Amino acid sequence: MNSSESRRASGGEHAEQGSALPDPKLHEHHPADVAARLTELDPRAAHDLLSRLPAQDRAEVFGYLDPHNQSAIAALCSRAELADLLVHIAPDERVDLFNALPTDTGQALLPALAQAEREDLRRLASYAEGTVGAVMTSDYALLRPELTAREAVEFLRERAPDSETIYQAYVVDEDRRLLGTLSLRELIVAPAHATVAELMVKDVIFARVDDPREEAANKIGHYDLLALPVVNGGDRLVGIVTYDDAMDVAAAEATEDFHKAGGTLGHLDVSLKTADVGLLYRKRAFWLVVLVFGNIFSGAGIAYFEDTIAAFVPLVFFLPLLIGSSGNAGAQSATLMVRALATGDVVPRDWGRMLARELVVASLLGLTMAGAVSGIGVARGGLALAVIVASTMVIVVIVGSVIGLSLPFILSRLKLDPAAASAPLVTSIADATGVVIYFSIATGVLRAGG
Amino acid sequence: MNSSESRRASGGEHAEQGSALPDPKLHEHHPADVAARLTELDPRAAHDLLSRLPAQDRAEVFGYLDPHNQSAIAALCSRAELADLLVHIAPDERVDLFNALPTDTGQALLPALAQAEREDLRRLASYAEGTVGAVMTSDYALLRPELTAREAVEFLRERAPDSETIYQAYVVDEDRRLLGTLSLRELIVAPAHATVAELMVKDVIFARVDDPREEAANKIGHYDLLALPVVNGGDRLVGIVTYDDAMDVAAAEATEDFHKAGGTLGHLDVSLKTADVGLLYRKRAFWLVVLVFGNIFSGAGIAYFEDTIAAFVPLVFFLPLLIGSSGNAGAQSATLMVRALATGDVVPRDWGRMLARELVVASLLGLTMAGAVSGIGVARGGLALAVIVASTMVIVVIVGSVIGLSLPFILSRLKLDPAAASAPLVTSIADATGVVIYFSIATGVLRAGG
Repeated sequence: MNSSESRRASGGEHAEQGSALPDPKLHEHHPADVAARLTELDPRAAHDLLSRLPAQDRAEVFGYLDPHNQSAIAALCSRAELADLLVHIAPDERVDLFNALPTDTGQALLPALAQAEREDLRRLASYAEGTVGAVMTSDYALLRPELTAREAVEFLRERAPDSETIYQAYVVDEDRRLLGTLSLRELIVAPAHATVAELMVKDVIFARVDDPREEAANKIGHYDLLALPVVNGGDRLVGIVTYDDAMDVAAAEATEDFHKAGGTLGHLDVSLKTADVGLLYRKRAFWLVVLVFGNIFSGAGIAYFEDTIAAFVPLVFFLPLLIGSSGNAGAQSATLMVRALATGDVVPRDWGRMLARELVVASLLGLTMAGAVSGIGVARGGLALAVIVASTMVIVVIVGSVIGLSLPFILSRLKLDPAAASAPLVTSIADATGVVIYFSIATGVLRAGG
Repeated sequence: MNSSESRRASGGEHAEQGSALPDPKLHEHHPADVAARLTELDPRAAHDLLSRLPAQDRAEVFGYLDPHNQSAIAALCSRAELADLLVHIAPDERVDLFNALPTDTGQALLPALAQAEREDLRRLASYAEGTVGAVMTSDYALLRPELTAREAVEFLRERAPDSETIYQAYVVDEDRRLLGTLSLRELIVAPAHATVAELMVKDVIFARVDDPREEAANKIGHYDLLALPVVNGGDRLVGIVTYDDAMDVAAAEATEDFHKAGGTLGHLDVSLKTADVGLLYRKRAFWLVVLVFGNIFSGAGIAYFEDTIAAFVPLVFFLPLLIGSSGNAGAQSATLMVRALATGDVVPRDWGRMLARELVVASLLGLTMAGAVSGIGVARGGLALAVIVASTMVIVVIVGSVIGLSLPFILSRLKLDPAAASAPLVTSIADATGVVIYFSIATGVLRAGG
């Protein structure tokens, strides 16, 4: 987001947020904007500015930084500064910071925390990256079922400064097993003497700590929840994922899929602006080199048909056009399917149904494009060439589309990420197939004609 | 989302949500799940099931359907059913339904609504698609500045059943100009006699009705807001965008960019699963045909160098590999840049900085790939061919990357959507450029050597 675009109104007046960041007034800006501004500075300058903020503000701003900038700044902090940061930061941010620190630094800082916080941190730090456990927070409000609505509201009022959300409270038994949920909205409209047990929603939507994090984000989006409770293997409540963290997860997953679709490895969990050359090189080199070897198949196909080409060089004119169209049609299908699988719009068992429709769509597309190019075929090489080019076009568009559609499903069946069916990968496969189809048809037609 | 994956706990017990949908108990399921199930039925069956639900539940379920399914079902409803739906549905869903109906049907239904609702509907329906106005709701809680905290809580309590959110309230003057915001959390912890004017946050983050809808979604994500107030040209409060609608907008925008990146026109605002053949054909045909003509430039390049090719046919073996690598490197750069521009990580004025780094990364990638292919060059055609292939590889990877990086910026400067710099488009441009570079180098080297 571009923080300089955010406008604020105050009593009907308008003021663009300042383009410079006057540090005496740093604390008057929204912490998200301060964080955005800090990422444009080098880590040393960012650290200096941060250290002038009051401890609470500093922790808040720090929480809005991305992991890359967090570690860069943390590396410049003294132990005392780190301890101070660790004490003031929210539990879910605390664990990210802790994980970003060198192990011994992290361990040395633990005594700065109260025992409960220390245990909480150790527990949160134990969940694998990419799981619900790694994005949840332990700042939530618990209610006992026997409380009355009035008592519950009073209880939440007291918890308000310490809980990430008090709008959604969780009802548990003595063993911390989740009995139900109750919103503050339901509580304040309820009769004062109704009990939490009577009022709570018993049919709870929840996630498990070791579910993939995108599942929590999908549930929050699907059911329009403010927060999703998270239970462990023993069905005990261990945390919640809030809607704002779900938005971050959804955005990160979309970015990851987006980058994969473009033929890079996974996503950059750092800003593209500040990512260094080495990281970008590593993210991109692997697939480029793999695809080189993929393209050798196309080359081998061409070499195999060298006689046909030498006999009728005008065929080469149409090569990029035909294999390009096959690759483009394939990239379209793959992209549509990857996104539909990611959002759950399509599930693996829909393959057959999707394939049947794809054959119809791809045939129409192939015929359209055969029409578009057959005139050029006649112009450059007469009727025989036009027939070769038009019939190749129909076939390669269908074949390319089927490859593009099927590859994400195949990857998904193999328990691989469908998003690895990137446009460049599909294009390379469709290219090699297209070469063979093109020159086979050409060889056949030319032999028959000549 | 796949509704059958959502699990619910009830008092520690677990029950997978039923795989069949027993309609007497339809109302016991979450409306989001009922809606997901309905999309798998044909519209007539979906309409039948819906009509058996109580009016309020029916409106809720209907609100979770996508626009395509909403219109399909609405087309089967009698006027009385539509009027009933229009009365019970949330205001932001109401306007979507109203816009989906044929104009005369919509107008004929207006008298079913109370006057205030009718005016509200007419107003909401007037905002252009894609703007903040078209996604906002008019169900929000207003507070007068002179109320005390206790009075304000009591007021919100009464408004609870009718407001989309009571957790965030908006303070306005007599002219409905936005003075500040106040959360229920702040209200309930405040001293009972403090006034709203004293407690409210005056530095309000807001959007304007005619801003693009993704700007509202970005602000909600950036500042972790529950809801964002929306003002009109006269700075009067006219609606709010809630976090759940912002999540939907962010997901729709990500899908749209994703589809564009794969070379289709915009996004399907319907499920890929239920989209019909004609729609898919139209979404895909345009770009495929445009790209055919783009590929003709590659063909023309090849034709221009026919003498070189005829003189040394082994060159053709490396054609797919070299232009493919150029296109792949370009697709990578374009993808990284399109997403970074969409999320605001990179802004148009960063072009120079990005370009400088890209030149370094692309040079490294080009050298890596030149190394990977030069051996094959020696094997197939001796040292001269190896020199041609390796030097072409370095140059086309750099040129492809620069094209891929720059195109989104150029589109953005031209006020076009950077996401139109799709992988297929970049590939086509990089291909044509690669052909010319390859055969120019080959002609030069062969002439010098021969």
